Amino acid sequence: MEDTKVCLEKQPLSQEMLEKMNAYWRAANYLSAGQLYLLDNPLLKEPLTMDHIKKKIVGHWGTVPGQNFIYTHCNRAIKRYDLDMILLSGPGHGGNFQIANTYMEGSYSEVYPNISQDEEGMKKMFKQFSFPCGVPSHCAPETPGSINEGGELGYSIAHAFGAVFDNPDLIATVVVGDGEAETGPLATSWQSNKFLNPMTDGAVLPILHLNGYKISNPTIFSRISHEEIESFFKGCGWKPYFVEGDDPMTMHKLMAETMDTVIEEIKAIQKNARENNNPERPVWPMIVLRTPKGWTGPKVVDGQQIEGSFRAHQVPLTMESPEHLDLLKEWLGSYHAEELFDENGRLIPELEELTPKGDARLGANPHANGGKLLKDLRLPDFRTYGIEVEPGKTKAQDMIELGGYIRDIFKLNKENKNFRIFGPDESMSNRLYKVFEEENRDWNADLLDTDDCLARDGRIMDSMLSEHMCEGWLEGYLLTGRHGFFASYEAFIRIVDSMAAQHAKWLKVCNQLSWRQPIASLNFILTSNVWQQDHNGFTHQDPGFLDHIANKKADVVRMYLPPDANCLLSCFDHCIKSKNYVNAIVASKHPSCQWLSMEQAVKHCTQGIGIWEWASNDCGEEPDIVMASCGDTPTLEVMAAVTILRDAMPELKVRVVNVVDLFKMQSDHKHPHGLSDAEYDAIFTKDKPVIFAFHGYPTLIHELTFERNNHNMSVHGYLEEGTITTPFDMRVQNQIDRFNLVKDAVMHLPQLGNKGSFLIQQMNDKLVAHKQYIAEYGQDLEEVRDWEWHTPEDK
Amino acid sequence: MEDTKVCLEKQPLSQEMLEKMNAYWRAANYLSAGQLYLLDNPLLKEPLTMDHIKKKIVGHWGTVPGQNFIYTHCNRAIKRYDLDMILLSGPGHGGNFQIANTYMEGSYSEVYPNISQDEEGMKKMFKQFSFPCGVPSHCAPETPGSINEGGELGYSIAHAFGAVFDNPDLIATVVVGDGEAETGPLATSWQSNKFLNPMTDGAVLPILHLNGYKISNPTIFSRISHEEIESFFKGCGWKPYFVEGDDPMTMHKLMAETMDTVIEEIKAIQKNARENNNPERPVWPMIVLRTPKGWTGPKVVDGQQIEGSFRAHQVPLTMESPEHLDLLKEWLGSYHAEELFDENGRLIPELEELTPKGDARLGANPHANGGKLLKDLRLPDFRTYGIEVEPGKTKAQDMIELGGYIRDIFKLNKENKNFRIFGPDESMSNRLYKVFEEENRDWNADLLDTDDCLARDGRIMDSMLSEHMCEGWLEGYLLTGRHGFFASYEAFIRIVDSMAAQHAKWLKVCNQLSWRQPIASLNFILTSNVWQQDHNGFTHQDPGFLDHIANKKADVVRMYLPPDANCLLSCFDHCIKSKNYVNAIVASKHPSCQWLSMEQAVKHCTQGIGIWEWASNDCGEEPDIVMASCGDTPTLEVMAAVTILRDAMPELKVRVVNVVDLFKMQSDHKHPHGLSDAEYDAIFTKDKPVIFAFHGYPTLIHELTFERNNHNMSVHGYLEEGTITTPFDMRVQNQIDRFNLVKDAVMHLPQLGNKGSFLIQQMNDKLVAHKQYIAEYGQDLEEVRDWEWHTPEDK
Repeated sequence: MEDTKVCLEKQPLSQEMLEKMNAYWRAANYLSAGQLYLLDNPLLKEPLTMDHIKKKIVGHWGTVPGQNFIYTHCNRAIKRYDLDMILLSGPGHGGNFQIANTYMEGSYSEVYPNISQDEEGMKKMFKQFSFPCGVPSHCAPETPGSINEGGELGYSIAHAFGAVFDNPDLIATVVVGDGEAETGPLATSWQSNKFLNPMTDGAVLPILHLNGYKISNPTIFSRISHEEIESFFKGCGWKPYFVEGDDPMTMHKLMAETMDTVIEEIKAIQKNARENNNPERPVWPMIVLRTPKGWTGPKVVDGQQIEGSFRAHQVPLTMESPEHLDLLKEWLGSYHAEELFDENGRLIPELEELTPKGDARLGANPHANGGKLLKDLRLPDFRTYGIEVEPGKTKAQDMIELGGYIRDIFKLNKENKNFRIFGPDESMSNRLYKVFEEENRDWNADLLDTDDCLARDGRIMDSMLSEHMCEGWLEGYLLTGRHGFFASYEAFIRIVDSMAAQHAKWLKVCNQLSWRQPIASLNFILTSNVWQQDHNGFTHQDPGFLDHIANKKADVVRMYLPPDANCLLSCFDHCIKSKNYVNAIVASKHPSCQWLSMEQAVKHCTQGIGIWEWASNDCGEEPDIVMASCGDTPTLEVMAAVTILRDAMPELKVRVVNVVDLFKMQSDHKHPHGLSDAEYDAIFTKDKPVIFAFHGYPTLIHELTFERNNHNMSVHGYLEEGTITTPFDMRVQNQIDRFNLVKDAVMHLPQLGNKGSFLIQQMNDKLVAHKQYIAEYGQDLEEVRDWEWHTPEDK
Repeated sequence: MEDTKVCLEKQPLSQEMLEKMNAYWRAANYLSAGQLYLLDNPLLKEPLTMDHIKKKIVGHWGTVPGQNFIYTHCNRAIKRYDLDMILLSGPGHGGNFQIANTYMEGSYSEVYPNISQDEEGMKKMFKQFSFPCGVPSHCAPETPGSINEGGELGYSIAHAFGAVFDNPDLIATVVVGDGEAETGPLATSWQSNKFLNPMTDGAVLPILHLNGYKISNPTIFSRISHEEIESFFKGCGWKPYFVEGDDPMTMHKLMAETMDTVIEEIKAIQKNARENNNPERPVWPMIVLRTPKGWTGPKVVDGQQIEGSFRAHQVPLTMESPEHLDLLKEWLGSYHAEELFDENGRLIPELEELTPKGDARLGANPHANGGKLLKDLRLPDFRTYGIEVEPGKTKAQDMIELGGYIRDIFKLNKENKNFRIFGPDESMSNRLYKVFEEENRDWNADLLDTDDCLARDGRIMDSMLSEHMCEGWLEGYLLTGRHGFFASYEAFIRIVDSMAAQHAKWLKVCNQLSWRQPIASLNFILTSNVWQQDHNGFTHQDPGFLDHIANKKADVVRMYLPPDANCLLSCFDHCIKSKNYVNAIVASKHPSCQWLSMEQAVKHCTQGIGIWEWASNDCGEEPDIVMASCGDTPTLEVMAAVTILRDAMPELKVRVVNVVDLFKMQSDHKHPHGLSDAEYDAIFTKDKPVIFAFHGYPTLIHELTFERNNHNMSVHGYLEEGTITTPFDMRVQNQIDRFNLVKDAVMHLPQLGNKGSFLIQQMNDKLVAHKQYIAEYGQDLEEVRDWEWHTPEDK
């Protein structure tokens, strides 16, 4: 860190230093309150009138003074110990605190030159906050130094752990709100210390901020005994230090001493681990900080207690009664801004001195703008992992093949340490077997000799059964400039619907901020999917994550459904190189038919959609019918249906279409990947029947193609039917099987007449035979199990 | 409990009793393993051959013996203390355990007479398990005694608490898997004891089952120190008892003694509370049970350790090698079924004696088939809560009005104690003010004098900031035969997407089970919605829960978007009376325009969709354009757009349509509420332009109407735009505001020629003026803020 004076010997904190810190804190509180209220007169040079006040007062105050207090003390610790630190704000609704502090240290004005460190800039900063066309009231992408959005609560600790993995010198200090602490994701994230290696990872310093209240209720942690709090954290493997009180000067001393203690403890843990090559799990320190909600704000308003109560949560003064103006004057006046800022509105030099400098500032730490640190992955040529394919005869397990490629990504990036993979105890089940040839799972709880592929420094993060942690850790890892993906059972990715949506929103905003450097995409591989469950069933069937993603901003989201292993390799390679997207790949893990050579796969995936001419017999003419598919199982069934149709009536002109990049279906004016109407019509025709077999809910195809010309489309997909059953019966129950597809095709071709009726009857017979066979033997008919693609010439 | 011998004095457990219990456990283990493997020869009367074995072995074994052990000990405790107990299985993947036990006690055959308690029935029971057309391998709706689906993990404790609220004599024993314990929802659910009243609620007895492994990893709780486990649970307010070992007879003695201790402790806590009128939070007992995974199963298979390792998770023997048959013989033989079942396959009388009788059996307890206990709510006449309306002039806050009705539901059902409401610290924010006139929030952590509306016996469950707990508690409450709803910020209901989907799946299956009695619907009120955020912003905008619900089975899901307070009252009344649905109501909380008198509202909501003739001027003829809306904000903007259109060109025939019941848009062959094509065309016409303003993502209307004739429809909705801004600007940014609607209408009416172009220009000018005004003043233009509906005659 440049320009930072280091003072490594512990010194008693002088009264002068504490008083300066208190002044700094007052300045932060002043600027935070100013953001809530002031439209003008930022330094109160004139007597305050209603003309200086915003018309609508919206924002949060309750959590702000406590967070300003923490920021002030982080600054001191950074300077004293020359720390590389980022700060995550769990109770992020009080985003004005982080704006105030980054403004004071100068990092805010660096990214927003218009908000200068003078009276004019302060006025603009005040006005823009929680104001139309301004900045959100939360810690948000717009807030420098933040990698944790303060809208939806619960992910701060997971993000912090993600940030410090493979960043041995980084400390992620996390303010955890006592409301946030009640959420499920936060509650389990305390256990993340079982996945931290003190030799090779950095440290997380949680500060549980007990300000006692949520929006309108007390918090659980503030209303249980000291012994219970202490036991809880010890049980989670932390050593809690308590800093409690409401007298500012007493609290500054206590907090500063405690910060010194915990930082020195962290450094001692790391020193011991690194010098003695000892990666065992230590007991990491943390802080429990109890301060009044709305500390230093109005005590009583309209006869009701504000400071120290839930009523301090949002704005203590609504400004709807005339007395509020007096109370505001008194409140803002209590900070004595005139002592803290000079004539021009700049923080006085004695206080500026307290801030770290350069990249050491919390608002300027490059880890919190991870794109700055992003190094491209070294990637092998994915083509070399391709398999030889005899179309529709070769069988392979797509996820196993992908595993070989990922194994070698681990190999090539061993030194850079910037790639991890994430999953909730499912990497084996999802058939990523080959990655275990090169890499272990991360585990820092007790180890036994009999353990399999567990190691203190493993980079496969799949030993915790929590989708929330996988997602949160990965987001933190990506946001700090690294790479990875989350492989999940398709149905249970819905557990993190909301987290994924929030990350997509984060990226959408980042795309509008020139100073936020692009980060690696958030990649999902959805496997163990709806179409084959084996010992699971109805609960494990939900292909709706795609519908969820489809609703997010088009410039952020992408969806790929490769029909086979070579296509999966091509899609994954594309996604893992990409930036600032949320990519969802649906992949097959069971042995399944392969269709395309690597060369064909690359071409097909690059186009994203294509006519499979080798499987069609329309010979470039207008077909009688289009048989289209998207996803591996639908592709298999469409191909099987096509063989039935062609064997029965070789004269029928069938066009076979396959979709890999789902957004190709949408109009080009809605999604950058969308086909133009002309391109779409060239593939699907303007009016010929299209039988479309889709991996997910049929409605997703309906919504994507609503504005297309050709509505003569019958979509087959998952209909919420089937539970424990055979793979083929799942398809039958949802009418996406070959027999039902053929029936539907014939029904769309009235010109077939009796020939068509006869074929429908044949299909019905097949369906009856199927049902009888599985009820008896629990297996699919041999003709289905052993089915292979053939062209008429093959026969 | 009928036929149950009560023995309330503690007696030393005799060796004979323990041996009988062990034999009972062996029988359960035998039946559980049999379900995994045997297609025939259920009693092993013949030498076992591959012909007797299922072709595909699918299911879970690892967790089963431990859960059989618990079931056996619950049976003893129920008999000894005459308990009213249900059992929830968190690690529900091992559903065969619950089938085995309910079969032995007879409750299984009562609901499935075909699975009789004899050799033939046993054979069928074995075959059906995890078999096509059979029953799922999880604890599922099909499993008698279960109210917790074992597919998606993490909700067992929340369900248990929901079950015991207002059931003072019920004990809900919950097996918590050590894998499940790592999920977020489970981790925070330990805190639910802060919401339990020992006087008026029952007890939850958690048994954390440390079997050490998940699918392929160890578990965190099994790999931390005894002290850490103990501290953790003490910190969560529980008193943990440890039962650890692997020698069956030693373990039976220890477990039986521990069960006696904890049951007596629960009874003592309840006695003290009830006799001394002391509702203070006690420290409730719980059990930590450590047994080997796959206990009593094969020790080593193919050279690899099975019992006591993660390899016991699914099936220990895949039967793919010939030695497996010998190992299976040895394994099944080790239980000595011939000593446990008679010639005819019935459990011998000495063992049958160990099961509770009648409704005391865990598989027959009526709380686990809650519809049996369901009493209708006493409801006031919602019409009396209606407000007087001057259309488009009256303003009201819909949620405030609804609060009055709900307040009186509390009043009318005080004695029945079968109604609670749920929300994550949002009831006040969601404007349910009036309910606090009658009812308090539930809180059993420390109380302060300054606390507001908190009480030990409150029925408003909104003091924990966890959507997961609200949802899980409510589900448990409903599943045991009571009533309630979950009011949530619209965006954050996405946190429980997956829970809601799982409940919808549960109900879908229940609809197919004649013995499962209907339960009250799961009702969601989504408010604080996307269109007005004030101090929040982009993170708080997500109307996609509707899209999520729309994909679930049509016979289970319903969606209502009342445009005003009277319609909200009508919809809510309908939903709270309904059974076996998942109802989502989108409601407005801000002051907003009112449209319909109560009489009109009832009619409109009953029809679900309607032409507002009073606002239309097509006079029963074919209109030039249809202006349609769904949701309160879209309705306002459509009505405003209609006034602009009519003022500008009175000759234009505009039809105004409003949709309350969203599924009316879908075809009647897809959803029971759907309109027929003829009905739909009568409203929307076959080809006239339809400008549709929708509350949520436009794509939902696209997918619902894909198969309709009239595709000349332009849908406006949320486009992932806007953050902190004014309410009207949110609409402008997403082009659902009156000016953009008028522009779009004109663009669909080329016949308007220059007159249309002129109107478009006017609208563009309005949009520019709007932008300038909010940037300056942070408020909407007065003409927007003060807008009122008028008919041409009014003007």
